[in-house]
Amino acid sequence: MRRLPPQTPLAYLIGDILSKTNLIKEIEKVEERMRIQADERHPDLRVALDTLLASGGKRVRPRLVLLMGNMLSADTERLITLAAAIEMLHTATLVHDDLIDGSLMRRGNDTINANWTPAATVLTGDFIFARAAKLAAQTGSLTVMEEFAETLAIMVNGELTQMFDARGLANRENYYQRIYAKTGSLFELSTHGAAIISPADPETVEEARKFGRELGTAFQIVDDILDFTGNQAAVGKPVGSDLLQGLITLPALYYIEANPKNERVKSLLQGNYHNSAEIALLVEDIRQSDAIQFALDEAKKYANRALESLKGQAPSEERFALESLTEYVTNRNV
Amino acid sequence: MRRLPPQTPLAYLIGDILSKTNLIKEIEKVEERMRIQADERHPDLRVALDTLLASGGKRVRPRLVLLMGNMLSADTERLITLAAAIEMLHTATLVHDDLIDGSLMRRGNDTINANWTPAATVLTGDFIFARAAKLAAQTGSLTVMEEFAETLAIMVNGELTQMFDARGLANRENYYQRIYAKTGSLFELSTHGAAIISPADPETVEEARKFGRELGTAFQIVDDILDFTGNQAAVGKPVGSDLLQGLITLPALYYIEANPKNERVKSLLQGNYHNSAEIALLVEDIRQSDAIQFALDEAKKYANRALESLKGQAPSEERFALESLTEYVTNRNV
Repeated sequence: MRRLPPQTPLAYLIGDILSKTNLIKEIEKVEERMRIQADERHPDLRVALDTLLASGGKRVRPRLVLLMGNMLSADTERLITLAAAIEMLHTATLVHDDLIDGSLMRRGNDTINANWTPAATVLTGDFIFARAAKLAAQTGSLTVMEEFAETLAIMVNGELTQMFDARGLANRENYYQRIYAKTGSLFELSTHGAAIISPADPETVEEARKFGRELGTAFQIVDDILDFTGNQAAVGKPVGSDLLQGLITLPALYYIEANPKNERVKSLLQGNYHNSAEIALLVEDIRQSDAIQFALDEAKKYANRALESLKGQAPSEERFALESLTEYVTNRNV
Repeated sequence: MRRLPPQTPLAYLIGDILSKTNLIKEIEKVEERMRIQADERHPDLRVALDTLLASGGKRVRPRLVLLMGNMLSADTERLITLAAAIEMLHTATLVHDDLIDGSLMRRGNDTINANWTPAATVLTGDFIFARAAKLAAQTGSLTVMEEFAETLAIMVNGELTQMFDARGLANRENYYQRIYAKTGSLFELSTHGAAIISPADPETVEEARKFGRELGTAFQIVDDILDFTGNQAAVGKPVGSDLLQGLITLPALYYIEANPKNERVKSLLQGNYHNSAEIALLVEDIRQSDAIQFALDEAKKYANRALESLKGQAPSEERFALESLTEYVTNRNV
């Protein structure tokens, strides 16, 4: 069985691929567009927003907007506006999520809630939401605006489900709903939104939407696999941290389905998440099992469907980049 | 000097006037539009949202949307959508504000944060924001959408200013900025948005915007006066509660300007907000002083400017209702 090698975080690697796609100037413009959203009046807020927006990783979502939009001949200015809107929406959700989870570090920086009161953190997130919404309106497309608001609702709803249902229902349907809310929906908005503001026909717009959704799903499954197989130092969190926090992802689901009588599985299903030594042993079991490969195969199905949705496009640098990216997510030999 | 009589809360009285304006069916539709925004999937969230949306007071903002929009012959369905968007935006900001202020009661009901964790409260507010944004997009006007996002940014920015600047700068400029962020901006969005989706000419749209802004300012000044002169039982909070919380409103500003050498004023300006017995005496001084009338005169200036902006309109039931409302805010003999 092929095992994934120790990894650096997926977003980083994907960004690495994407950074070769000649988008440097456009990404700089996206970052500039985000920076000017910070209000001048509060020096503290400005510094916080600058740090937050400057440490934004590899800009996977803006790059998806730009690649899809350039492929479909959309206006560059509108794409930059959309990319900034989506990255700011992403940033706003991270600000509130970090507060909710009590996370003190992200991407090597202090989170907002590490240094500010909960009240200031809530308002900072709200401010970034407001700016993101204004940028979305500035794309000049009501459809984009509606999809933007719907995506925010889906993401928040996903968080609420996780909170209300807690560890109640570990099954595949819930898993896929959760990762769609967490990752798929915003990837979908990125490619769908770019297509909406392009001169593409409705069928192409629908394929662009599917591409983002399938890619986002594959991306999140692989991210969940890396939580088991990743190199602890590179990923920046302990191996199996999802399960240690009570989050049952696809590899764990497969393992549970295949080993219902395993004592550790039974203990887990009885709600025993507090014995972290036992969980650590279960993580090791899963890591050594077929469940990893099963999950990777599943990710590949989504990646293949993403590739399928690009088939109708003429060959172009952007199509090639989107395909390379998709293959890269599930096949590290690319 | 004329003194304002003990009052029930202003929003209630205004709602009373507005409820005579034959909008019953339309307001019911606005409430129905809001109710269907609650997602079916979380029974707890649904109950919370139902309670929140059902206890919404007198719907001053939706009524402003409907009156202005009907006066300008806007499409009723679009007005209902806009009114629901604005009331939900208002509700979302209240959810986050109550969390930030630690308020446990509002309008006679428990606040969300009284019963739920901060995390669930943040997400509930975010969910309502998302739904409000979607409704705003459904008005079919990008300009409305941009104004909506801008208003949210102004409101959040006002909260941030209050938080960062704390009690640093008590002057009229800051006071007017604060009440614009708190009240004027959303009143402005109500009447401006209604005009934008009507067939009105640009000049009328601009007058409609001014009307909301001036009325909102007058409304908030009178609300701040009532904090000094109001009947404690009816207003539902102690007389002078703003000053007790360190919030210097217009009557206090006038009093401070007129009595710079007063010992209690000096103590206040030195940052002594913690001696609540002394503050209570200062509240009584202000209550008995000319500052109340000065502030009321100032509110009347704004109300007159609001009335001025309706002058170009032909007589109609709606214009009469808007005028009555404006006069009522500052002249309780109406």
